[in-house]
This record gives sequence, C-alpha cells and structure tokens, in this order.
Amino acid sequence: MVSDKMAKLVAGSSIIRAMFQDGKIMAEKYGKENVYDFSLGNPSIVPPPTVKEAIADLALNSPEMELHGYMSNEGYDDVRQTVAEYINKTYGTDYSAKNIIMTVGAAGGLNVALKSLINPGDEVLLVAPYFGEYDNYIANFDGVKVVISPDYERFSINFEELEKKITPKTRFMIINSPNNPTGAVYSEEDIIRLAEILDRKQKEYGISIFLFSDEPYREIAFNGIEVPYITKYYSNAIVGYSYSKSLSLPGERIGYLVVPTELDDFEDTIVAMSVATRIMGFVNAPSLMQKVVARCIGQTSDLKVYEENKEILYKALTEYGYECVEPGGTFYMFPKCPIPDDKEFCAKAKDFRLVIVPGSGFSCPGYFRIAFCVDKSTVVNSLDSFKKLIDFYK
Amino acid sequence: MVSDKMAKLVAGSSIIRAMFQDGKIMAEKYGKENVYDFSLGNPSIVPPPTVKEAIADLALNSPEMELHGYMSNEGYDDVRQTVAEYINKTYGTDYSAKNIIMTVGAAGGLNVALKSLINPGDEVLLVAPYFGEYDNYIANFDGVKVVISPDYERFSINFEELEKKITPKTRFMIINSPNNPTGAVYSEEDIIRLAEILDRKQKEYGISIFLFSDEPYREIAFNGIEVPYITKYYSNAIVGYSYSKSLSLPGERIGYLVVPTELDDFEDTIVAMSVATRIMGFVNAPSLMQKVVARCIGQTSDLKVYEENKEILYKALTEYGYECVEPGGTFYMFPKCPIPDDKEFCAKAKDFRLVIVPGSGFSCPGYFRIAFCVDKSTVVNSLDSFKKLIDFYK
Repeated sequence: MVSDKMAKLVAGSSIIRAMFQDGKIMAEKYGKENVYDFSLGNPSIVPPPTVKEAIADLALNSPEMELHGYMSNEGYDDVRQTVAEYINKTYGTDYSAKNIIMTVGAAGGLNVALKSLINPGDEVLLVAPYFGEYDNYIANFDGVKVVISPDYERFSINFEELEKKITPKTRFMIINSPNNPTGAVYSEEDIIRLAEILDRKQKEYGISIFLFSDEPYREIAFNGIEVPYITKYYSNAIVGYSYSKSLSLPGERIGYLVVPTELDDFEDTIVAMSVATRIMGFVNAPSLMQKVVARCIGQTSDLKVYEENKEILYKALTEYGYECVEPGGTFYMFPKCPIPDDKEFCAKAKDFRLVIVPGSGFSCPGYFRIAFCVDKSTVVNSLDSFKKLIDFYK
Repeated sequence: MVSDKMAKLVAGSSIIRAMFQDGKIMAEKYGKENVYDFSLGNPSIVPPPTVKEAIADLALNSPEMELHGYMSNEGYDDVRQTVAEYINKTYGTDYSAKNIIMTVGAAGGLNVALKSLINPGDEVLLVAPYFGEYDNYIANFDGVKVVISPDYERFSINFEELEKKITPKTRFMIINSPNNPTGAVYSEEDIIRLAEILDRKQKEYGISIFLFSDEPYREIAFNGIEVPYITKYYSNAIVGYSYSKSLSLPGERIGYLVVPTELDDFEDTIVAMSVATRIMGFVNAPSLMQKVVARCIGQTSDLKVYEENKEILYKALTEYGYECVEPGGTFYMFPKCPIPDDKEFCAKAKDFRLVIVPGSGFSCPGYFRIAFCVDKSTVVNSLDSFKKLIDFYK
C-alpha cells in the first residue's frame, strides 16, 4: 500500500494519463497530420543556438570539478549575480546575488518557498482558473487552499471576493501572470489593487501574506504588453521563474526564486530556502544548466510563432462564435464551451480530431484550454474542425 | 517567520555552515598547502573524458526538442532500459525499463520513495553511524526515526537490537553500504541475516517493511570486495543510486531508483513514485544528463586514488595508535577519537591544521570522519599532523 496522500493521486492518475495519451493514440490511428493536439503545454520552438554552443563550450573547456561539482545550495554566486543584474537592468530593481536562489525549475522553486514559509493549516489563496498542480504543492505541506472564483470578464482577479476570503490564517497567495490556462496578463492597476488589499489585511490581522508570482511565461507576452514586476508593488512578494518556456528547456529543470531584501524575516527566509533546497532532495539546481542560463542571460527562443498562432486562432474562433477572452500572453487560450459540460464538449471534440483540455482541470468548468505551442500549420489546419465543432451545437 | 519545521533547521544551520567553512577560512589564513581539509565528501577526481564528449555531442547533434523537452516523469524509456540492462548484466538481475525511475540524485530518489511509501507516524529504521540528512528526509514526511546503535566492532548492523526495535509501525529501513561515514561494506552474510529478520517481522506483524539501499558509493569498493545487490535477497527492497560519486557529477543531480517487480503493490508504487516525482517539483531528472549517463553506462572516474589514499591513511593512523575499522569502500574513514569528546577533539585538530568532522554529526559520538577524496599529496603531508594530534593526548 502506498502512502495515504499518494493513494488518492494514484487512483486519479490513470485518468490524467489517458487524457494526455489521447493525442498520441489518435495520431497513431488517424495519422499525425490529421490530429490537432492542443493538449500539452510543451514548448514547440527550439532553444536559441547559443544554448547548444554554451553547453558544448562549458563541457569541453571549463574546469570539470567546478562545472559538475557541488556549490552552495543557493547556486553559483556568479550565476546568481548575473541573474540579479539582468533583472535590475530589465525591470529597474536593485537586487544582488543574495536575492536569488537557483531552483530545479519553477515547480522546484515553488515547493521550496512553500516548505520554507507555510505551516500545516495555513491558508493559501489561489485565483481560478489555475494550474492544477498548485493544489498538490500546497497539499505537500498540509496547507489549505482557498480558491477565488474566476473573473469571467477579464480572467483577472475577483477583488471583492479576495478581500472576503482573507482570514487571519492566510499565509500565502499564488498568482500566475501571464496565465496558464487563460493567457491573461494582470495590468499594473490589477497589481496595485491586489497589493493594497494584501497590505491592508496584513496590518489588520498582524500577519505576513507572501505573494508568490509564478512567472514561467513572462517573456511570452503579446503586442509589447507590459508584465508588471510584482516586487515593485508589494514588499512580501516572491518571484518564481523558469527557463522552461522562454528558453525551451523544460526537461533541464532550471529556474530561480527572487526574494527581495524587504521581505519579512529576509535573512531567515533565505537560509530556510537554502536548507529546504538541500533537505528536499534538490540539493542545488543542476550545475551545468546554471552556467548555461547565465551565459544566455536575456535571450529567448524565437517566440513570435506563439503570437502568430494566437492571432490566427483568436480571430477565427471568435468569428465562428466562440466566446473568448483574448490572451495577453502564454501559448494558451481559454474559450467558453458552447455547452455547460466541458468534459462532454472535449470528448465530442475528439470526433473532429481536436485534443483540448476541459476547464474543470483548472477549477473552471464550462471552459476549455487550447495550448497553441504547435506548428502554425497545425493551427491553420485545425480551424475547420473548430468550426464544425461549434456548429454541431447550433 | 519561516515555517516551524524550518525554524529549527535555520537556527542550527549557521553552526553547520561555519564548520564547513573552516577549511576555507584556514586555507586563506595559512595557505592551502598547509591545511589538510578532510571535511567534505566531494569527489576529487574528474569524470572520464567520455562524459564531456557525450555532453557536447548530444548538445550539438541530437534533436533539441527531444534533448531538452519533457518526457515521462520516470525518465526516458530508452535511458531506463539501458540502466536496467546494465544492472542485469552486472548483478544478474532481470529488470526492464519499468523497474527504473530516473531521479534528481540519490537525495531526490530517497525523498520520492519516502513520499510514496510512508505515512506520518510510520517508523523508519536507521543504522548508526549514518548520514545526518536521513533525519531530515524522514522529517519531511513526518516519519519517526528509530536508530539502531553502532556495531563498534565492524560497523555492520546490531542485529539483536534491530530485531527488538522493529514494531508494527515499522515501515521503512535505510541502509547505506558502502557506508558514509564508516566506509563499511555489508557482507552477503549481513544481508542474508538482515533479510531474514525483516521477512520474519513482516509476517509476524502482517506489514510491509521496505528496505531502502542508498548506494552512491557502490563502485568505490576496495580489494575487489563484493557489494551484494540487495534486491536479490529481499523482495521489498528498493535501490537508490546516484552518479555523483562514481562519475564525479554531484552538481548535475542524476541518479535512479530500482523498484523490483516483486515489491508489494509494485504497480501502484511505481505510479506513486512517478506522480511524487512530478508533484514534489522534480518533474523529471534533468534530461541531458539522463542521456549522458546512458551513453557512459558502466564507466566511472578513475577511482583508484581513493583506494591509494585509504591504504596510506589506514596504515599510518593505525601505526600511530588510532583505533579504526578498515574501510571496505567509499572515501571515508571513521577512527575512534583518543578522547570521548569528539567535538573537542576536532576543535583541537585544527591546531594541527586538520579539518575533520565529529562523529556526533553521524549519531556516533567519540569518533571522527576523514573524507580522503583529496589529492594524494594532501594525504601524505597530513600524516605528521595526525601523529602530533594523537601524541598530544598521550
């Protein structure tokens, strides 16, 4: 018998696994070019050529004991300094190496932050629709999730509901902008309003509420839209970043945490995160990849195909009658289903060779997610199917 | 305020950090060549040249989306198959890909196994002296550690005490052979006896007791001594392996778990470990490094310097009057202190420019650990200091 906490997840995993095998199975059955698989959020663009050059050069020419050896749990000092300087230059902040912890992807970073800051029973605010894994990360540490229901108009934040749901047990809030699954980008006004509410509640209850901004999609933002840097608006803010989507390196597990000096108990928090990195089994972010991202700092894969796909899809789908909040970023779109049952709708979509994901998986039934991190030709070829699908319900 | 669990570790961390900075600080003060730093278990030998060649070739010539992309949480199928075939060929087992989960080092693997298998309150048996991090891994999941006191004669296992300390709440046991900190290698007789006890107790209490063999030092074994493959002796055995010490890649975070098909609830356990890998934030072992270790399967760094260092140290120290169980493997030696207070002894050692670690840190006061993963010249030059140190107490 596996552990009790894992037993529930084991029971549910076969359903999830089947769902994500759908695209593969259909491709085998009907031919890959005849299936429009929009289910997985896996980058579809190669890393910039500087990445492979950096890997090879480091491997062949830099001292091996240092390249592959242990370093402090927070990461190489020079890598952390390079990351800090890049953030300062780009966002107008004032960080140094001590504010940066290199992590095993964004997922590793968020787990480290939760381990370091929440106690069993602490409440963690989530904004629906949200990436379902947040539930599991919170459960890892016996936190209690408190979900703010969706703002269907803009997929921003239901601020009135947020304010009502903050209690003396609120400890942590996770936001994700640009957002999976909606593609929404919170505006500066949104962030200012959020910060005001959290600040007021911190004072009212005499507590610290840590605002965690999960930002793997920061660079996938359209039309030059600004993605506000959270730490400039709220002092108990932490940024979690990953190179998975911006440099197309999801398998390599490399990202970082930004922990501002003005955070409550900054010194102890940094030590806690360093120790947590070690005792949770990460020990440190992979050494070679730390040096690679430092070398390639500020670069990204050629991200414009995501915007091109968005343009094609959004125009067509809205013409066909789908209701959809236009994404400001990411490679996700979150249209409303023409029927209330999103699972039934996504099952029907397979008849038209479309593989899409029900919004229920993101705590937002009645909607569906399209991951358009695919070739443009797949997007173009899928349009007819999307039309037939909505016409089926007319 | 950091989380309660982390607060204690934060308080203690400055002491540990200071201890591991000792060597650096003394080197700066007296000159590196005048300090004999035996405190850190960091490999001192470069990886075989095939590693850098594999990294460069994979980076420059293999399809990038597959090389750096997500794969199943258990790892690439072909890498798992390669690892399974290597284990079969070397140890006479009969595994396939499904028995292997690639992990973020041995630390990641052990955390995944504990997350998957233990509930809060479950007892986890440990054999002193042991690697102190096991305490933290167990605490991560609210397990209860039960320590078997040291077998001072051979640093094997106190079997009578073990038998007494198994209860209906015993769920997991961690062994580490070749052993950090003692260098001991359990014999086949030891393993057979251990398996017999555990098997008998499983039946007596109607429970499963998972025997986890933490094996990063498997290849650092001297005089051709055989390191028994645990899974051949006990069916609820799991092996945790890492390439950190054998391929000198500790910073890269790459290892694997071996989960035999005969394990109780094998299917559910594999699923649990796969899901745990994902939700704990590892997601998967680093992709490039998975492929590197597959390419370099069966190779190691040139490990003979560790045995040479052992020979020099053991001969000299026993001549000087130190009592010491001769290591069968690893780059560690665990002599008895000439005085009962190991912390006082290690503090005095610094007067002779020796940096060594008190056995208290391994739940074995009165002893000290020497990590001889250093240049041979450091070992040779240190001998006089070891002599002066023990003479001080005569």
